[in-house]
This record gives sequence, structure tokens and C-alpha cells, in this order.
Amino acid sequence: MTFANELKKICPNRVLYKKEDVYTYAFDTSKNPDEIIMPAAVVFPKSAVEVSKIVKLAQKNNISIVPRAKGTNHIGSTRPIKNCIILHFSLMDKIIEINKENLIAVVEPNVAIGDLNFELDKLNLFFPPDPSNLAVSTVVGAVCLNSGGPRTFKYGNTKDYVINLEVVLADGTIVETACNIAKNVTGYNLTNLFTGSEGTLGIITKITLKLIPKPQTRLLTLAYFDSLTDAANCSNEIINSGFIPSTIDLIDNFTLKTIESFNPTGLLTDKKAALLIELDGFKESVLSEIKLLKEILIKMNAKNIVQTQDEKQNENIWKARRSAFSALSQVMPDVITEDIVVNRDKIVDFIEHVEFLSKKYNIIAAIMGHIADGNIHPNFALNLEDKNQKENFEKLKDELFYYALKIGGTLSGEHGIGVQKKKYLKDALNKNSYELMKKIKNLLDPNDIFNSGKSL
Amino acid sequence: MTFANELKKICPNRVLYKKEDVYTYAFDTSKNPDEIIMPAAVVFPKSAVEVSKIVKLAQKNNISIVPRAKGTNHIGSTRPIKNCIILHFSLMDKIIEINKENLIAVVEPNVAIGDLNFELDKLNLFFPPDPSNLAVSTVVGAVCLNSGGPRTFKYGNTKDYVINLEVVLADGTIVETACNIAKNVTGYNLTNLFTGSEGTLGIITKITLKLIPKPQTRLLTLAYFDSLTDAANCSNEIINSGFIPSTIDLIDNFTLKTIESFNPTGLLTDKKAALLIELDGFKESVLSEIKLLKEILIKMNAKNIVQTQDEKQNENIWKARRSAFSALSQVMPDVITEDIVVNRDKIVDFIEHVEFLSKKYNIIAAIMGHIADGNIHPNFALNLEDKNQKENFEKLKDELFYYALKIGGTLSGEHGIGVQKKKYLKDALNKNSYELMKKIKNLLDPNDIFNSGKSL
Repeated sequence: MTFANELKKICPNRVLYKKEDVYTYAFDTSKNPDEIIMPAAVVFPKSAVEVSKIVKLAQKNNISIVPRAKGTNHIGSTRPIKNCIILHFSLMDKIIEINKENLIAVVEPNVAIGDLNFELDKLNLFFPPDPSNLAVSTVVGAVCLNSGGPRTFKYGNTKDYVINLEVVLADGTIVETACNIAKNVTGYNLTNLFTGSEGTLGIITKITLKLIPKPQTRLLTLAYFDSLTDAANCSNEIINSGFIPSTIDLIDNFTLKTIESFNPTGLLTDKKAALLIELDGFKESVLSEIKLLKEILIKMNAKNIVQTQDEKQNENIWKARRSAFSALSQVMPDVITEDIVVNRDKIVDFIEHVEFLSKKYNIIAAIMGHIADGNIHPNFALNLEDKNQKENFEKLKDELFYYALKIGGTLSGEHGIGVQKKKYLKDALNKNSYELMKKIKNLLDPNDIFNSGKSL
Repeated sequence: MTFANELKKICPNRVLYKKEDVYTYAFDTSKNPDEIIMPAAVVFPKSAVEVSKIVKLAQKNNISIVPRAKGTNHIGSTRPIKNCIILHFSLMDKIIEINKENLIAVVEPNVAIGDLNFELDKLNLFFPPDPSNLAVSTVVGAVCLNSGGPRTFKYGNTKDYVINLEVVLADGTIVETACNIAKNVTGYNLTNLFTGSEGTLGIITKITLKLIPKPQTRLLTLAYFDSLTDAANCSNEIINSGFIPSTIDLIDNFTLKTIESFNPTGLLTDKKAALLIELDGFKESVLSEIKLLKEILIKMNAKNIVQTQDEKQNENIWKARRSAFSALSQVMPDVITEDIVVNRDKIVDFIEHVEFLSKKYNIIAAIMGHIADGNIHPNFALNLEDKNQKENFEKLKDELFYYALKIGGTLSGEHGIGVQKKKYLKDALNKNSYELMKKIKNLLDPNDIFNSGKSL
């Protein structure tokens, strides 16, 4: 029996294997691969038991499994890099339970974060991680990459909300990493070992999340500055003054201009940088804190301050902010979003280096970032069909990441490693740490079938 | 050369091996062991390099290493249960760095949490985990047990603040689990694997902590209720109303009475239960939130409400709360603090069961707990010299933990497993999860020399 036929026995009518059907799965949101590698098949399981059977079959046939939900990652985590099958989560997409009293949600992998929060919203509950493309980004994607978003400074990354995972291991065993209790120190923390492991240690089939009460009010303050240094210093001063804003995002001049020309919303395009600050909590508290915040902004040389008064005004600004990627795509055919973290005392240094590299290699850099975390997202706009630009970009990237490491930074705060940053990983970790991670990979996946070639 | 002499070569003048010198290390804060087992030696290393040499020597001699700081755990985690040496951290006690701008502290294992927060306080910084005995509890203890305290509902456990660990592995290799960056998804999360592993996977020799800005104001509200059910319902209503208080602690009538007779501070001893609620943040925000909180308390049948106005009044109440253990020790010679977590919808059910078991076995139970987390601490006061009481207590404990598991709860929220709860561990985890943890233990510690016999 052929492999595809064996797969069909496990998932009847839920296997694609013809070239024209699987072609699209050679790609994900990350930049196009140099070599197009199509999966041998795409299979759509409906349960952990089916996933377990698929894993056993893959072991028998020594074929790699690439787990995939909506494929919106930036690091090539969900596309083939060698002979493999795609295990697609699209039929495992149910919200199984939302328990308001226990502040817990149990979901299948393919639930979109936006859809989950839409349901939670009705109950005044909240799951904080919010990747830019939250309408499509899935919970399993967020778990695999330990995703964050603008609200991590106050609320943390996905790992801070995952309390239990159902995972199919390399021998097909189905394991629960913990139980559905948020505060739990019973045994080793397997949950956080799988979270952020990019699908390389097992296939996640069910996720229990810790929720929090939804803040009553959220208001945004948009402050403009004449220099990046002023903006960065202001961010630090806000934190030093005791604020833990849900967001402090940095937007540079190029990004402001590009967003504004794409979709005019009144952003000031003559300022060098803007900070987007979100405070949340009870209404009266937020209003009184906005007064304190304004004093700091003025003291720290903010030139213009825009204050929202309600959720609708917030949403207009968030929409503009989230459109940065699409807006940049109008400038050049390819936009590559990088994700780097440096400590707060190195932010200005690092951003200046991005600008230096942008000039050196003549590649447009639009800089944004969750500056309170030191998490910088330089967006590079270029034409990858232009061989010269493509080569220059590779050089730029090498210099960029090695510079970040040199100043004590790290490769990723929320996007992960995948294929795109794999070549830097050994240099980012100390040797013994890398080897220990490799040993754990070998223990959990001795034949290297889980998302082989990504991350570790 | 004898083993003690070899140890002395590594740590000159820093080895104890005479019976009279090592006797005291047969004990820790947990209840006295049935059989007194003295360590073969106690060694006081000063550096990771020395620890590495000790580990290699222990491997060669096939002897277990029990890492120990101040020994204040409740689970027998730091005392010998078989032939071993104690690796004592008392000479590794320096705060290496506090970086205000980067919100990071680097410390050696034996730094007391109270001492760290004393230094952080001067810089308006804050490390939230706060075990009751924070004057002595050490950072390494908190890391090994993933300790919490009353503030975990808002601020999380220790794992949420550990960003990098220096660890000596079983072959003597010194590894850093990550780097000194708070937001980091580069490679697997080794940091959280070691955190909470009770010293069974490696010896932690340096710890990097994430800090947060210290809240400007903290105020306490003490509310009394006529029934446990009213108190539990009120706690849930506070959360449902959007509050994330830094603390919601429950104190039962017996505890109120005992504390008050030990050290009168005006606690009301005729009420069935009290909730101790701490709000923190900017002063104006806290004051306006207290108004909202009071409305909820009244609606939810609070009978008396005491509101603090400043830090000094807070400290008086906290002192009373923290004296519960000492106060109970005046009632009976032995007090055993248990640590169980159930979901919020099972709190009343569980507490009623504790009361039922207390009557059934005629053992005093004083109940406290971080009720917002469902983390209940029944304190049992008894005389362990009384053979009958001791046997009854063992029966009570078995019933207690199996009941918690039956209703979906877990064995520990912040104290860990150690020796005391090891017998329940297999039943608390699903079989495949337990086996995976065992595999990880075997991978990292193939000869079982790290805190052998504790937890996994």
C-alpha cells in the first residue's frame, strides 16, 4: 500500500497528495524559499488519536511531519525543507470550554486568537498575547513560537498563559503535560518545554489556557519625538516612574510616513519617532494615570501628544499600527519583518546600527518595536528578485544578528527561530546550553521526525 | 585518600564530616524524619567551578548531593534520605548586580528574598514572589520549588521572574540556560525546566531575575464573613468584577483566634472567615479602586471591613498574618503546613472536606490560603510524638490529597513535592506524563546523584 493510501486509512477523504493540491503548502508567510519543496502529502486529522496514528506511520516510513495551522509565522516554521508531510490542524478548531469562574479556556490547536478573544470578550475575559495578525494567528502557533505582541511588557508571552498541553510524542503516546490548574508545581514543567519549541518535540493537539479578567478600560496615548533617543529615554522614564503600561510601542519616521501614505489617519509624518502607549484597568484609574503619564511625556520632550477617549479611537490607531506591514508591501514587493531583543540600555545603540546597515546596504528599514521589552522589529522592504539586493540583505542580516548578540541581545522575542535564523542559533546560545537542548531534542524525537530542520 | 579529604582538596577548610558537625543537617523545616540520616559530609563551595568539581567527585564515588540553602522548605527537600553529602550554598550569597534600567538582578543562590527586596526597594524595584518566611527564604530555594506567596494571583510564581540560570550538570559541565534578556524565545526553555525541579536535574549556581517597578502604593482591606462560602463567593466576585488584586488571602476562624491569642492586634475572632485583599499601584488609582472594592464587599455580605491607610498599618496586618505558623506552634508541638490547589469552583467543597477530615481524625486544622489562585494551605496542629495522632495524620493526609486529585486539584502550588508528597506524585500526573518526566530525569542525571529520592 502506498504511503498516501495508508494516510487515507487514518483520515479518510482528508489527505491531499496530488502536486496541484500540495503545491501551495511549499510556502508560508515567511519569504519564499530558494528551493520549492512540496510535501509528500497534506493530512487533516480530527483528533489526537488520529495524530498518534499519523506519527506512528511517519516513524515507520521515516518521514518528517511539519505541523501547520494558518502558516502566518515569519520564520519558515510551517513549510517543508525536506521530504515530509504537512499535518494540518484546520479540522481541529473548536473552543472546547471557557470556564469563567476558573479563568480557563480549553481549545483545539487551530482556534484563531481573534476568535477566542471575541468569545472571551462576551464574558469579560481576556487572553493577552496578541500577534499583529490576530484575526488569523492561531493558539497553536502562539504556543509553538511562544508568541507575544505589543502587550507583553505587562502581560508576558504565551508561555505565561499555557497551563496544560495535550501532546502526541514520537512513539505516538498521547501525554498531558500538567493538569487544568493555573498554579501548579507538581513535577517538572513540561508545559513550558513544549511551549516555544516550534513543533520540534511533539505535536500539540489540545491547549489549556489561563485567562484573566478583561480590563474595564483601555486608552492609548500617542506621543511624537524629535529623535529616537528622546523616545527611548522617555520609554525608560515611564517604566522608572512605576508604570507598567500594557503597551509601549515605538514607530519610526519611515513607518509613520508609509502607514500615512497607505491609509491617511492623521499620523504626524515629520516627527522622528512616536511612542504608542496603552494604559488599561479601571476607568478612573486609567484617567488619573494618564495625567501622570502626560507630565512624564512633556518632561521627556514629547512634541505632540494625542490621547484617545474611547475604544473606537483606540481601534483606529491600532488599525493604523497594524497596517504597517501591508503599507510597507506597497513600497517594495517584499517586506521581511525581523525580531530581535536587546536590553533597554542598548535600544538606541541597536536602532542606530539598523539605520547604519540600512544605508550601508541600501535596503529600506522601517523600525517598530515593543520598546518596553527591548523587542525591536526592523521591517526591511526590498525586492528579492533583484539578485544584488537579495545578496546584500543576507549580508545585512548577518551583521544585524551578530551585532545584536555582541551587545548582549538575542535572536527572537516572539517570532522564533525556524529556518530563517537557524544559522545563528549556535552562536546565540552558549555551547553547553545548545548541546543540552540537542540532547532533549534527541530524547523526545530520536528519529528527528518533528518539524525536522527547524530551530534546534 | 578518603572522600572527605578529596572534598577538602576542592574546598579547603570548608568541609564538615564529624558526626557532631553534620548532625543538624539531618533536619530541615519539614517535620522530623522517622529515621535520622546524617550526611557523609557538608561542603561549602564558593563558585560554580568548585561545585563542578564536587559533582565530578560525587559521580566517581556514586554519592548523592543534596543542595541546601536555608532549609526552610516544608517538604523535606533539603535533608538526607540516604547516603549523601550536603552541598551548602551559604558562601555563595552575593547580589552580583542590580540593573535598574534593564530591570534585571543577578544573584548567587543563597541571597535571601527579603535582603534582595531590601536592596531593590532603594531603587524602587520589586521582585514579587514572597514566601511567608521571606527574611530567610533564599532565591535558590524559590527557584528550586517555584515558590509563590500571597501575591501570585497578580504577579505569578518564581518561574515568571527567572530568565537565566547557571547550572552545573551531572557531568560537571557548567551551562547557562538562556541569556540575561527577559523576553526571549531563542531555543528551548531550559530555564523553566530547572525552575521547580527541586534540585533534581542540576545544581543552580547563579540566577538572573526579571524585576518590575515597585508599585507606588499598597493598601490592605480586611473583610470578615459569617461563612466560608460567603468569603469564597466574594473572592470570585472581586475577580469577576475585573480586579486583579496583588493578594486575596483567606483566613479561617481558628487561625484568626489563634493569631489573636498569640499576639493581640484586634482581629475579630467571632467571624467565620476573613479575606485579606491587597491592591497596589498608583495612589490615586488604588484609592479609587478601594471604593469599588468596598461596594463589592458589602454586596457580597462582608460583615466588617477594615481598611489600612498606609504602609505601617499594612505591615501590622501582614505581621499578624505571617505569625499564623508561630501562633499555631503554641497550640500544639507540631504544625504541618500543607499546600494544595483546586480550581476556584471547588474551593468551598475542598475546605469543607478539610473540616470534615479534621473532625474525623480529631486533628486541629487551621485553614489559610491564596484563595484567588485556589491555593489552600491547611495547617495541621498536632503532636507527632503521639503515635495514634501520627497515624491518624497519615490517614488524613492520604484522604486529603486523594480528595484534591479527585476534584481536579493538584498536590502543590508553591511548596513542591520533595519527600513528603512523593507517594502521591504518580497518581497526580497522568502515566505518560510521569514517564516523560522520568526520562528527562534520567537524561540529565543518569546516576541519580542530584537530590536523589525527592520529587521525581
